[in-house]
Amino acid sequence: MCQLFATPVANQIQGEVKKRVDGFRQLHNRPPKLSVVLVGNDAASQIYTRRKGELATRLGMDHETILFPANAIPTHVREQVQRLNEDPLVDGILIQRPLPKSFREEEVLYWIDPSKDVDAFHPLHAGELVLGIPTLQPCTPSGIMELLAFYKISVQGKLVCVVGRSPIVGKPMATLLLNSDATVIHCHSKTPNMGKLTREAEVVIIAAGKPGLIGSAEIQPGAVVVDVGIHRNSDGKLCGDVRFDEVAPIASAITPVPGGVGPMTLSILMRNTILAAEQRAQL
Amino acid sequence: MCQLFATPVANQIQGEVKKRVDGFRQLHNRPPKLSVVLVGNDAASQIYTRRKGELATRLGMDHETILFPANAIPTHVREQVQRLNEDPLVDGILIQRPLPKSFREEEVLYWIDPSKDVDAFHPLHAGELVLGIPTLQPCTPSGIMELLAFYKISVQGKLVCVVGRSPIVGKPMATLLLNSDATVIHCHSKTPNMGKLTREAEVVIIAAGKPGLIGSAEIQPGAVVVDVGIHRNSDGKLCGDVRFDEVAPIASAITPVPGGVGPMTLSILMRNTILAAEQRAQL
Repeated sequence: MCQLFATPVANQIQGEVKKRVDGFRQLHNRPPKLSVVLVGNDAASQIYTRRKGELATRLGMDHETILFPANAIPTHVREQVQRLNEDPLVDGILIQRPLPKSFREEEVLYWIDPSKDVDAFHPLHAGELVLGIPTLQPCTPSGIMELLAFYKISVQGKLVCVVGRSPIVGKPMATLLLNSDATVIHCHSKTPNMGKLTREAEVVIIAAGKPGLIGSAEIQPGAVVVDVGIHRNSDGKLCGDVRFDEVAPIASAITPVPGGVGPMTLSILMRNTILAAEQRAQL
Repeated sequence: MCQLFATPVANQIQGEVKKRVDGFRQLHNRPPKLSVVLVGNDAASQIYTRRKGELATRLGMDHETILFPANAIPTHVREQVQRLNEDPLVDGILIQRPLPKSFREEEVLYWIDPSKDVDAFHPLHAGELVLGIPTLQPCTPSGIMELLAFYKISVQGKLVCVVGRSPIVGKPMATLLLNSDATVIHCHSKTPNMGKLTREAEVVIIAAGKPGLIGSAEIQPGAVVVDVGIHRNSDGKLCGDVRFDEVAPIASAITPVPGGVGPMTLSILMRNTILAAEQRAQL
């Protein structure tokens, strides 16, 4: 069994991003800039936002976090995003999730100009992904494709099962796999006898958001297992959607939690930011 | 075995569209209008375009077909589409496919204003469909959902196999099924042992574009079979992707070719046109 650690892949991607950032600075006499909008004081969101800023800085990018209180009026946040859309010095914008309940996700999705939407949550990006048109790709599924490619795991012609159908992970994951010539079984919370289907698959990607959902009974011996979940169990330890100790001995390859999928997401976000900067500079 | 004939469903949808068209005319003192752009003189395209116009007229809508020669310069066609986008009396626009090779499909997809894009081919619509945001839906998969609903065939919690991954049918079909709580197996030309997967499914939707691809060996007894293919065989007879005579005896329900999926597509196009007109009038 091979553990699919993110570190070597993330390092490689970040090294490439840093080179492109240096090139961008030389060509345009300014660093690419990532603006993060954070509403409220959710502890996890504060940690994620800080990490994004630290990594952006480390890779030579400019970075700002714009804070709003939890009771901020959505229109005011929208106006700020609009100013960022219009600011020629801002290349990438992201709005940290989750947002307070006063925000309607269906509206927020349209706020960021697609050319600066480095999370790739805008419906236009979702559509371009489906149609196979080159575009900014959502960070987690794109990171998983990079992780598999780095470890020379091809999905072409393979039977791949995706568990979960969120707009951020499950759905774009299935699209990327299909576009890479995988045959895709797409399961979710309303799937009866899910274990029978996951067991058929040569690669299983689990983004269900349910701690320990998948055990050895649900996995075919020799399968590749990618675990997108990250939870804290009752002992305070981080764990995924997969019962690692049970599945690792029968899998041919498996992502650890933490240290598997998570760091990939952040690296792709940085790559999306330099890509957005480069593409806007060409317009 | 029950044959899923389109006629009663298409009649019902067209009846509803006619009522909405009458209401629109009363409210706005003009009929909704569909503009079709046809480039070249492909015989099948001429028939399809004429049928669209005849049905639009029969349902009380205004209609025009704008003809360009096969050697038309794409920029000129684009300028015409732009004029239609800006014309307040035009509610729906469609560009008949296939286009001559001088047209780049990846560019043409963006020409029609999404609010008038009644084929729903614009990437924005594809993304909204994935994200479950109410939007104009592509006609064939949307028509199949209506056909199944009319015959009280629920896909919720069912294992459904989609064969084919075209941007117009296979991909949006899988999305609509997933959004309706089906578990989806998505197969295509690069799927090994496809018959094993189609045989597992309770509902099989075939949009492979290959005459007679699916026979009784590929279908589970009692399955529901939807055949999107339409071809002319060596005897000059219309046939689908399914070998009807072989599969019909073991299926619980099956769409005939012709008379199954085909007429649904045209009815949904009409519904999309009145929907686009109503939505634009509310802006």
